[in-house]
Amino acid sequence: MSKPTPLSGFPEWLPAQRIIEQRFLDHIRRTFELYGFASLETRAVEPLDQLLRKGETSKEVYVLRRLQADSTDSSDASLGLHFDLTVPFARFVLENAGKLHFPFRRYQIQKAWRGERPQVGRYREFTQADIDIVDRDTLPAHYEAELPLVIGDALAGLPIPKPTVLVNNRKVLQGFYQGLDLVDPEAVMRVVDKLDKIGPAGVTAELSPLGVTDSQARLVLGLAEISADDGSFVDDVRKLGVSDPLLDEGLAELAAVVEAAGAHSPGLCRAELKIARGLDYYTGTVYETQLAGLERYGSVCSGGRYDNLASSGNDRFPGVGLSIGVSRLLGVLFGENALSASRSVPTAVLVAVSAEEDRRSCDRIAAQLRARGIATEVSPSAAKFGKQIKFADRRGIPYVWFPGAEGAADTVKDIRSGEQVEASAGNWTPPAVDLIPVVEGTFN
Amino acid sequence: MSKPTPLSGFPEWLPAQRIIEQRFLDHIRRTFELYGFASLETRAVEPLDQLLRKGETSKEVYVLRRLQADSTDSSDASLGLHFDLTVPFARFVLENAGKLHFPFRRYQIQKAWRGERPQVGRYREFTQADIDIVDRDTLPAHYEAELPLVIGDALAGLPIPKPTVLVNNRKVLQGFYQGLDLVDPEAVMRVVDKLDKIGPAGVTAELSPLGVTDSQARLVLGLAEISADDGSFVDDVRKLGVSDPLLDEGLAELAAVVEAAGAHSPGLCRAELKIARGLDYYTGTVYETQLAGLERYGSVCSGGRYDNLASSGNDRFPGVGLSIGVSRLLGVLFGENALSASRSVPTAVLVAVSAEEDRRSCDRIAAQLRARGIATEVSPSAAKFGKQIKFADRRGIPYVWFPGAEGAADTVKDIRSGEQVEASAGNWTPPAVDLIPVVEGTFN
Repeated sequence: MSKPTPLSGFPEWLPAQRIIEQRFLDHIRRTFELYGFASLETRAVEPLDQLLRKGETSKEVYVLRRLQADSTDSSDASLGLHFDLTVPFARFVLENAGKLHFPFRRYQIQKAWRGERPQVGRYREFTQADIDIVDRDTLPAHYEAELPLVIGDALAGLPIPKPTVLVNNRKVLQGFYQGLDLVDPEAVMRVVDKLDKIGPAGVTAELSPLGVTDSQARLVLGLAEISADDGSFVDDVRKLGVSDPLLDEGLAELAAVVEAAGAHSPGLCRAELKIARGLDYYTGTVYETQLAGLERYGSVCSGGRYDNLASSGNDRFPGVGLSIGVSRLLGVLFGENALSASRSVPTAVLVAVSAEEDRRSCDRIAAQLRARGIATEVSPSAAKFGKQIKFADRRGIPYVWFPGAEGAADTVKDIRSGEQVEASAGNWTPPAVDLIPVVEGTFN
Repeated sequence: MSKPTPLSGFPEWLPAQRIIEQRFLDHIRRTFELYGFASLETRAVEPLDQLLRKGETSKEVYVLRRLQADSTDSSDASLGLHFDLTVPFARFVLENAGKLHFPFRRYQIQKAWRGERPQVGRYREFTQADIDIVDRDTLPAHYEAELPLVIGDALAGLPIPKPTVLVNNRKVLQGFYQGLDLVDPEAVMRVVDKLDKIGPAGVTAELSPLGVTDSQARLVLGLAEISADDGSFVDDVRKLGVSDPLLDEGLAELAAVVEAAGAHSPGLCRAELKIARGLDYYTGTVYETQLAGLERYGSVCSGGRYDNLASSGNDRFPGVGLSIGVSRLLGVLFGENALSASRSVPTAVLVAVSAEEDRRSCDRIAAQLRARGIATEVSPSAAKFGKQIKFADRRGIPYVWFPGAEGAADTVKDIRSGEQVEASAGNWTPPAVDLIPVVEGTFN
């Protein structure tokens, strides 16, 4: 076969990058579990009608068929790959409601697929790390305040630029637009969502065909400009002179989110009243997350509250969720050369082999080290020691172990410093910093 | 929407089952890393021509298309979901050979998809955990002996029935059939592979159209009956009176595999000369793995050596790999009700809330416990304590934390024993056995 080439939009990390990704995922998972979120994995496919319920993303769905399915066989005809983890989760909750305990907290770390045009940090296949809390019938608003704290802890432990979770509440926008007597608040929201792209003049121009007057547009833009990392934004909104019961409700919820975050991690959250989020299943708090200095790449963690995504007959499961775009986060940081791993393998020790007939005893040394949690490889061949040390050096393996010749003690060499000491496989341990690869960010 | 129903062949685990799966995957991954295997993930899709190179599995491939791709747009027309992790790995090696260090040891834990008819332990979507070692140009045979030891360690740490790795070598079969002057050794191998299904008479009958005489068939069956957990099988083969240089080579390699395994874990490996493996890219050692008492469900870990899977022009990367069928393993054991988890959430402690206005201080207690690695949830509401304890009990959360009223000390209650003691969130720790869910098997 000819040499294969990469597929645009389907990123694959090299081993050292994958070590970084694993470190990120392990830390994210650990944080989610410390908050009591249970892991879930859903299948990669959903019935197509499920995926297309909300219309907007239909263009991005990958449809499946079995290669050998004959044209009269319609059994698989309606499956597509999921484009996020929220829609499958809502379906899972409805399907298994009788077997789950509510409120149900789950995390889900999986791939999703969208047939979008690829660009930096935007892929056709990508990994998401989601948390959601759903309850039966009603969902207390305090969960909308809790979720950003979880994400804050998850991101705070990673070697990345400072994250800021931007928060808004759909009720604030909806209520404000209602208070202004705008005819189609949803359409207005979609225009305002483009503010950063098309600017205030562009927004005003696009609002005009929706029957929004210039003075109304000024108020819509006035609301969108409001931003604060404490509850002070409520007064700013009041000053615009618009009133509506839904607006009041939204402002109270939004203030609670910002204040809870301020108590937990000062500076983590900021009320940003221009945020609307594209997906139209959100009904309350909405979130986006920017990294300091990398705002141009868009949000690396988004979500919101949804009241109508999971419902069937009289069963209704309102929820709130946040999703870390792990592939986008890594893709952007790899692109900036902002992350490094100290080695490309988990291995801490290479056991040198002085003759092929010694391999079995080298295996026993390796087994002793592994039994004590030290990742160990045995050298691939009984080449000259210089070549074996080079094997370790190329991969960043810090130690080479030399089995002692008959009667003599084993020695272990730190190939970075050249220091070589006597050691026994039954009790030697490397410094903690060498036990697993060191992952670092140049932003910190 | 109406209540959704499961899709046949696309299993989804409930939270307690998923905790078991995670424990399995964590242990498998840990073992792989202790042996120095680097993690890799490849994209879910491959060009269709790559997937169909070996023909045999073509009927099982899922083909993708973008829902909105117009019929003249052929850019995505040729993508399919991978049906194993070996073919994508071979492609990855060729694509990235210049950036990898050889011999290259990698593990890969991912989903794969096959449009097969679903049955117990056989799914359309399933998780595999693979290890492979590839080298440039030549691959030392000692790796064929090492891989089953890794798998042995990975499986030995799981609460499952005793595994036995059945080993054969394609060279033994090929050489033996050549020595017998059989015209089409490959075809004979495929028939012998069905021995357990169709019996000796069935094999003889199917061999006849291939020009195999009855006396030749007796020898073919005689070879297939040989089985030993030490090197003694070599003599048994010799007694059949067939000789061929390739047979000699295969017997020496196979004996080395069985003997290395015997030294590491007595009883782990058995030479079983009827094993051939369906996929025709294997060229040396082949492996299958049975669980004691569950042999009828087939192999839970299979693989072999392949010399021609990854080659391009003058570049050739022979490899050897083994793949744990994680979904099959779990599906079979779940079906037998043979595995349990002590709870369905990671949570060890529930902090009780006596009034909604105390939630913020309950959050602080939870944060203190989490900071010391104790998974903690705060109660969803300030319901009566009996109801909050029930919330914990339903999920298997062992401890409920009661914040002390003004001035009084906090207390923590083991809701299984009823024992309640004074405690401080800054230093209380549950017994290690309660820190994470206990996963057990009823086979051990």
